[in-house]
Amino acid sequence: MAEPLFERIALVGIGLIGSSIARVVRREGLAGTIAISTRRAETLARAKELGLGDEYHARATDAVADADLVIVSVPVGASGQVAADIAPSLKPGAIVTDVGSTKRSVIEQMAPVLPEHVHFIPGHPIAGTEHSGPDAGFAELFEGRWCILTPLPGTDPQAQEKLAQFWQRCGSKVDTMDPEHHDMVLAIVSHLPHIIAYNIVGTADDLETVTKSEVIKYSASGFRDFTRLAASDPTMWRDVCLHNRDAILEMLARFMEDLSALQRAIRWGDGDKLFDLFTRTRAIRRSIIEAGQEVDLPDFGRQVVIHPPKREED
Amino acid sequence: MAEPLFERIALVGIGLIGSSIARVVRREGLAGTIAISTRRAETLARAKELGLGDEYHARATDAVADADLVIVSVPVGASGQVAADIAPSLKPGAIVTDVGSTKRSVIEQMAPVLPEHVHFIPGHPIAGTEHSGPDAGFAELFEGRWCILTPLPGTDPQAQEKLAQFWQRCGSKVDTMDPEHHDMVLAIVSHLPHIIAYNIVGTADDLETVTKSEVIKYSASGFRDFTRLAASDPTMWRDVCLHNRDAILEMLARFMEDLSALQRAIRWGDGDKLFDLFTRTRAIRRSIIEAGQEVDLPDFGRQVVIHPPKREED
Repeated sequence: MAEPLFERIALVGIGLIGSSIARVVRREGLAGTIAISTRRAETLARAKELGLGDEYHARATDAVADADLVIVSVPVGASGQVAADIAPSLKPGAIVTDVGSTKRSVIEQMAPVLPEHVHFIPGHPIAGTEHSGPDAGFAELFEGRWCILTPLPGTDPQAQEKLAQFWQRCGSKVDTMDPEHHDMVLAIVSHLPHIIAYNIVGTADDLETVTKSEVIKYSASGFRDFTRLAASDPTMWRDVCLHNRDAILEMLARFMEDLSALQRAIRWGDGDKLFDLFTRTRAIRRSIIEAGQEVDLPDFGRQVVIHPPKREED
Repeated sequence: MAEPLFERIALVGIGLIGSSIARVVRREGLAGTIAISTRRAETLARAKELGLGDEYHARATDAVADADLVIVSVPVGASGQVAADIAPSLKPGAIVTDVGSTKRSVIEQMAPVLPEHVHFIPGHPIAGTEHSGPDAGFAELFEGRWCILTPLPGTDPQAQEKLAQFWQRCGSKVDTMDPEHHDMVLAIVSHLPHIIAYNIVGTADDLETVTKSEVIKYSASGFRDFTRLAASDPTMWRDVCLHNRDAILEMLARFMEDLSALQRAIRWGDGDKLFDLFTRTRAIRRSIIEAGQEVDLPDFGRQVVIHPPKREED
């Protein structure tokens, strides 16, 4: 086991991301002590049952006291409150980071209340699943995935390097980006897809002509691919929508414009236009697979996974 | 091996669906002879290399001569031409079916030109992947999936029963439906999802503020789920859009209305409305998993599949 990177790591919030960090920190021996805190008593109790850390605190302020690295993993709308809570007990020289999906808003909420004697370096691991809570985490979540840091001007290079090293030891590749640019990139690669997914599932749920049971039965023909994203944590996604509003509205407007053009092509039977778009989009998928960000198996390899158990039951 | 259901099965078209049928028919011994025909010479040669059938014919009319079951697996826009080609050589009493994703249009194209002495029973196996061509097929494709038959009034019950039996022996569950209702159901569960997926991938491809390489790098945060559908066969999907126009436009209009309401909730910061929608949609995913139409693994079990090879390369 390598030398721990940090003497004491405090995890504020222990959902999918927080609990995955706890597991990989433990597996890789990245901390002397893992101190966990979360708002809800039953979640804290569950984290303890799962043995995710070394200490469990009802108050974030107790977890962060004396910590060298503090990772805030809460819905982005709660960032300001958490920052205010922990500010008085942060150790001078501690690194404070977060994992929020929006960065400008998190910076606006946290930076003004955190003391000057800590290194606040906002971050965002681009990893996740549709599941939430401490049971949903796993140590491999960050492997081969990107983690984006959005340091503020004047950030201490050594502290930034140490945080980057932390994410690398968790299995991630690290990128650095301007917070505004991060918010724009994420609006298209993550926020818009989730909003679209939630929306189409809602549309299907409201139909009078097609029953819910028909939607479910025949979902394998395309619809179910959207339901994974639409099953993501509602609190997290409400906060993302409220806290990255401008970039999301910009992407949504473009999407709707393009969809109107596509609608028109369908209405007027413009087969060439449809064929051109449907051909162009194939190349992007190929690139994602080549970049190692997707599995190259038909249907996500669902057949491979689903069949042996299915046949027994039938 | 059970008794063959049909003496001779002719497969017209040998892409993903046709070649999957060939493989399961062979594995289950459902035909005495499998005769294959397809329009492109190189596809036919490839089918022969793969050993998918017993006979390979450049002309559909030669494949269907003397066949007891003819399965047309071509883009729906080509159905009329195929029906006209094969009509003169169809054996009296033969069952003729198809696998097209739209049914009203296929019926309008095929029914008028097929002879009265055959049983024309339109069908649609709700199964597929984003891959196409004879190499993409596999015998398990239909297992646990639904196949919808949309028989015309006056269809011979015995012929219909035999076709249902065929699909069941391929591993499918069989449903019967009115063609118009089929087209409405498929518009929401399959056609709209594909159109939305193609559209969002196109929108991302056109951005000036976010580079294509950024979209690819960070696609694991949601976007990539859409790219699977957007990598589907362009010819097939162009034809679907052209041949199920009314139902698709209806669903598209509803989707856009709902998206406008969602857009408004984001603009005005209506967190409760967002939270309500994001909560409601979770239940649908749960039902799809319970119905056995989806794998219950986080992120479609991608971690499970992707990790061992990934770590070696890094």
